[in-house]
Amino acid sequence: MSQIGALITHPPSEGVEFARIEGEIGKDKGIKVRTLYTGICGTDRGIVRGALKFAYDPSGFDFQVLGHECIGQVESSNSDIFKKGDLVVPLVRRPGDCPNCRIGRPDNCSDGNKHEAGITGLHGFMREYFYEEAKNLVPVKNKDLAKIAVLTEPLKNVVKAFEVFEKVSSRSIFQNEFSTNEGKNALIIGSANEAFLYSFVAREYGFETYMANRHPIEDSKLEMCANFGVKFVDYSKDVNFPTNFGLDLIIDTSGDPSTIVRFLRKATYNAVVILFGTNGRAPDGVITGADIDWIVERNITICGSVDAARIHYEKALDLIQKWHLAHPGVMDRMITGIFKPEETNIFTVKPTGEIKSVIKWNELG
Amino acid sequence: MSQIGALITHPPSEGVEFARIEGEIGKDKGIKVRTLYTGICGTDRGIVRGALKFAYDPSGFDFQVLGHECIGQVESSNSDIFKKGDLVVPLVRRPGDCPNCRIGRPDNCSDGNKHEAGITGLHGFMREYFYEEAKNLVPVKNKDLAKIAVLTEPLKNVVKAFEVFEKVSSRSIFQNEFSTNEGKNALIIGSANEAFLYSFVAREYGFETYMANRHPIEDSKLEMCANFGVKFVDYSKDVNFPTNFGLDLIIDTSGDPSTIVRFLRKATYNAVVILFGTNGRAPDGVITGADIDWIVERNITICGSVDAARIHYEKALDLIQKWHLAHPGVMDRMITGIFKPEETNIFTVKPTGEIKSVIKWNELG
Amino acid sequence: MSQIGALITHPPSEGVEFARIEGEIGKDKGIKVRTLYTGICGTDRGIVRGALKFAYDPSGFDFQVLGHECIGQVESSNSDIFKKGDLVVPLVRRPGDCPNCRIGRPDNCSDGNKHEAGITGLHGFMREYFYEEAKNLVPVKNKDLAKIAVLTEPLKNVVKAFEVFEKVSSRSIFQNEFSTNEGKNALIIGSANEAFLYSFVAREYGFETYMANRHPIEDSKLEMCANFGVKFVDYSKDVNFPTNFGLDLIIDTSGDPSTIVRFLRKATYNAVVILFGTNGRAPDGVITGADIDWIVERNITICGSVDAARIHYEKALDLIQKWHLAHPGVMDRMITGIFKPEETNIFTVKPTGEIKSVIKWNELG
Amino acid sequence: MSQIGALITHPPSEGVEFARIEGEIGKDKGIKVRTLYTGICGTDRGIVRGALKFAYDPSGFDFQVLGHECIGQVESSNSDIFKKGDLVVPLVRRPGDCPNCRIGRPDNCSDGNKHEAGITGLHGFMREYFYEEAKNLVPVKNKDLAKIAVLTEPLKNVVKAFEVFEKVSSRSIFQNEFSTNEGKNALIIGSANEAFLYSFVAREYGFETYMANRHPIEDSKLEMCANFGVKFVDYSKDVNFPTNFGLDLIIDTSGDPSTIVRFLRKATYNAVVILFGTNGRAPDGVITGADIDWIVERNITICGSVDAARIHYEKALDLIQKWHLAHPGVMDRMITGIFKPEETNIFTVKPTGEIKSVIKWNELG
Repeated sequence: MSQIGALITHPPSEGVEFARIEGEIGKDKGIKVRTLYTGICGTDRGIVRGALKFAYDPSGFDFQVLGHECIGQVESSNSDIFKKGDLVVPLVRRPGDCPNCRIGRPDNCSDGNKHEAGITGLHGFMREYFYEEAKNLVPVKNKDLAKIAVLTEPLKNVVKAFEVFEKVSSRSIFQNEFSTNEGKNALIIGSANEAFLYSFVAREYGFETYMANRHPIEDSKLEMCANFGVKFVDYSKDVNFPTNFGLDLIIDTSGDPSTIVRFLRKATYNAVVILFGTNGRAPDGVITGADIDWIVERNITICGSVDAARIHYEKALDLIQKWHLAHPGVMDRMITGIFKPEETNIFTVKPTGEIKSVIKWNELG
Repeated sequence: MSQIGALITHPPSEGVEFARIEGEIGKDKGIKVRTLYTGICGTDRGIVRGALKFAYDPSGFDFQVLGHECIGQVESSNSDIFKKGDLVVPLVRRPGDCPNCRIGRPDNCSDGNKHEAGITGLHGFMREYFYEEAKNLVPVKNKDLAKIAVLTEPLKNVVKAFEVFEKVSSRSIFQNEFSTNEGKNALIIGSANEAFLYSFVAREYGFETYMANRHPIEDSKLEMCANFGVKFVDYSKDVNFPTNFGLDLIIDTSGDPSTIVRFLRKATYNAVVILFGTNGRAPDGVITGADIDWIVERNITICGSVDAARIHYEKALDLIQKWHLAHPGVMDRMITGIFKPEETNIFTVKPTGEIKSVIKWNELG
Repeated sequence: MSQIGALITHPPSEGVEFARIEGEIGKDKGIKVRTLYTGICGTDRGIVRGALKFAYDPSGFDFQVLGHECIGQVESSNSDIFKKGDLVVPLVRRPGDCPNCRIGRPDNCSDGNKHEAGITGLHGFMREYFYEEAKNLVPVKNKDLAKIAVLTEPLKNVVKAFEVFEKVSSRSIFQNEFSTNEGKNALIIGSANEAFLYSFVAREYGFETYMANRHPIEDSKLEMCANFGVKFVDYSKDVNFPTNFGLDLIIDTSGDPSTIVRFLRKATYNAVVILFGTNGRAPDGVITGADIDWIVERNITICGSVDAARIHYEKALDLIQKWHLAHPGVMDRMITGIFKPEETNIFTVKPTGEIKSVIKWNELG
Repeated sequence: MSQIGALITHPPSEGVEFARIEGEIGKDKGIKVRTLYTGICGTDRGIVRGALKFAYDPSGFDFQVLGHECIGQVESSNSDIFKKGDLVVPLVRRPGDCPNCRIGRPDNCSDGNKHEAGITGLHGFMREYFYEEAKNLVPVKNKDLAKIAVLTEPLKNVVKAFEVFEKVSSRSIFQNEFSTNEGKNALIIGSANEAFLYSFVAREYGFETYMANRHPIEDSKLEMCANFGVKFVDYSKDVNFPTNFGLDLIIDTSGDPSTIVRFLRKATYNAVVILFGTNGRAPDGVITGADIDWIVERNITICGSVDAARIHYEKALDLIQKWHLAHPGVMDRMITGIFKPEETNIFTVKPTGEIKSVIKWNELG
């Protein structure tokens, strides 16, 4: 029996601890994965703050290993599909038995009976190593991505959200008379990690893309935006933004009701609004009869979108690879801080200028 | 030059008047239609009340003939498609030049440059007769429908909204594991004409269907619901409805923000919410961070839906014909009052127990 | 142990026999159904002729009860869903474990591991009574349909095929510039039972509808066509049909390669061709480079379509109910002969003028 | 008036000539484009051979400039969208007035009233320079693509065909139980330019991808395949290919009926077959009743696919840019020969080992 370092929590209670736990948990899954990097996101911090009331320990344990954003390297494998040295990104959500789960779409789970690693009843990846089955590991073919592929997990959410956009926008002709998105405007609300990823993908779709927040952002971030052709708007100053055009696609990463309603009234005919951000502590917003009227008269569609499926992890990895070559250095600069597992204050104090903070667990082998 | 009786308005100013106007307006459209019945809806009353600020007179006129719900009979025709005696329902919306308008979907107009008979810049049908082109007239083949086909216009909105439901629900597996809607629950908010029609169509889709309002409804209406297998809920009494199941489809005909948000929190995974009703005078509602979270975590889709296209008029007529045979008398009982054009108080005082009030203009020839 | 009369086969060997078999087979399924009528189709005759090489006995049996088109009446039930006296149509196909089977779509089985009652490894319904689970029984609410609902099974294939049409035709704008199928032409090849049902549904979609065969059909059949607005073409006489328009939808019920290719060259831009009929004994056809070119240059889509899911049985029943009221007597006249189980020659000698021959097993209780 | 060099044809008559023509044809279109490279494909050779009977001269001309695969550089512009020096790829097909053309999808033209540059009634791009409107020019942002972007036009066909695949495959669950194409097999028939491009895109979709022809291919080509993970099959030797798996996606670039039918019988459940290649001189093929049965019982979909829309040009360019970085040199090696306009024998004698032969018209400015 071997003990390994791990970041453990006791959801829905607050707190996080770097502790020694049994390393061989889940050994029968067959593939041993050494953790390289794990990313830290709002969900992790919410669990540590005790704010995620739906989070809970795995059955039979009085703790839960934290962490769902991860890239690891196979240490040993009982599968033909993976061999020692392979880089992998593990899936977060695991299916229940509803129709969506049955076809590999637990992200669309119909009854809530799925599990999520590091969140709801399944140990996460913030530990020295873990065991997994091949079906829950997505291969990363290029060793150059050994660090930045930690962005796969957050990016896969974006890929799924755009799949949702494609599906729901088929209710009418969304594109212009030339069949493209030229002249269509996308607004991404927020300026944290997911906002950047949403903005970059909006550019892939050909949208005129705006990232907006109610405060300025650092020059280094503006430069990253510029590299992808994304425009940043500080709407505490540009209070009527946008003034001379309507928004065709709005993506919210803030979870703030007032901000969402504010920009909803800038949505134009057949617009799609993706709600992705959640913020339990956001102040209440007001929605008026005129807001409802606006949505109705313009055939606007508003979609909650959560998580993603294996297909989206694969497409996210493909985008990371593409961007790695087409926008050299930008993906690396998305990772604004590398921490040790012991530095648990990273979960309570957000570093200045953070886009994505990651924890390093092992060297690439 | 012949003068005819017509109900005229001066939008966005308030008021309505039964006046004599030139009968030969639009004569070059070629098909003369004697109006049989016109229905009265909230939009008509909104115009009369001066509440529809987007309504305006046709170009070159200092008035607009009211009325968009209509069934008429061809009096003379220059077209091979229609002949004297044919029953017809005229289209309300006329296309502009956007991609949706170009393919016969002005209901999904991308730029607002469409027109609507009796509402925005085009004379309506509340007059003794009018002229139209064949492409704007939908044939009604069965003379038995000469009165109840006045319901085609409101029902076509419902048909389009369910098309929207079908499109957006394709973002995940909506149906149960047996491919049907058995066990899926639909709530229709409101109990006026459109609420009945939405409820009836929800039953066609196999939903367990609830129509809800914050007051009781008359026994005669309960009976109509029962005939279609629709359950009515007075949620001023059943305050926690629904308690032991989630809602898979919510359709709002009230336009009331608070009511929408209230039931939104009863929506389950992959639920679709259709916003159809508008009410400029509705009190503001409150939307919380937890509401946003609910929408996100459950992949809920909220869709505004307005108007409909020719295909939906055709399907609506088909449903009216079907229901006429399958639920004898119910369609007739939807028409709760028949008025004369002179009785203009019908636009300001809603009759007790009204489902659909109509104006009779001419006898079936 | 009770013995009951049943029509049994030994696929893939030829032959059929009216024999006594154990009645309590499958009793643990819980719901006992008295068979009212079973329909006879080409598949049944193919099994009897020994031509269906993929047909086989249920595991553990040296025979297979024939029959998959059926309407029955519940005799006793262990389920809340059904009670004694209820009319039911049993499902034919039962799922394996592929993604399509998992979501109630065994009609789209991805690996062939489904079973079909009366065809592949599952006893059929040509016996005095049988046992079933609730999930495999579709309720028939109207007792008036006790005989004609035997058409549910063949009609459900048509409903699914039109679902396929809707899906694949979404690859471009199929409808006209007014959003409808007016002016679009559908050809149904064949004039047996399924050809009638396809023709009737094509009319529901608004197609100008032609049913074609290379010989004339009886006046009584022409009258049924006329009742639905279907035109019949004897293309042994009208050899260039159609001469002045293209076909937008072609549905083949013949399985004859030469006939399919012949009409393929009459398909117009964006046409959809549904292949439904199968005929192992059909003579070979010739397909030329010019045929391939025709398909390519016109973006034509050709779809095989087999079987259907529970949702299609429900919609088929709804259509039968609708047609029963809207076209009085036509559904009854679809059933051209009622036979006794003992009259097994019905499987080898097709009665003159047959549309659908059925076997009567029990009186409606 | 200035005379320029151009390759002109007189379709449907045979022949091609390098001649001097008026340079200012179409000057009112406003943007002058210097041709850099034009690609040569089977369509060009078909016109020169006199085999394309549907090709015809532009109205008012007794010749047609050949060429539809092109990359050029803006020489002067009256548009804000393009400026001197910009690289552009011109669109081939120009819309008529059908519903598909109206929304920028002339590739799906419903009535055949579109035109194609260099093919049907519109001058092509095989001339020193030409004039165009902004809406018909797709920008190429990266100067590194000045040569290889000549592949945009053939690749855009592939992108559209995969859009068709996505649409039609939605008729059932195509992906595996994990939501991906892992384990799904794609066969591309042919080994010319389009076959390579189809194979590369099939890899983007995650298919196990086979390119097949009835003869071996050069080592240099095998290497290019290997670079993308595409396997080549010489089915004159591997006569039963594939033996132990079914094909989920088949794409034909040969236009040969016998080959298509041969592999059709290797298609598995829910397979999609894309017909893209055309070959008027292909020998006739035989299609049997058993072939029809195979298509029906497996729910197979066969789609003709021709041309593409502006959105596909944009995506094609994006892929070329991506592959340029991810597979250095491979795109360049796709261009196997660069010729002078005078070398007109290139239209009649296909160079050994050709993938794509191009004509160079001007130096990049």
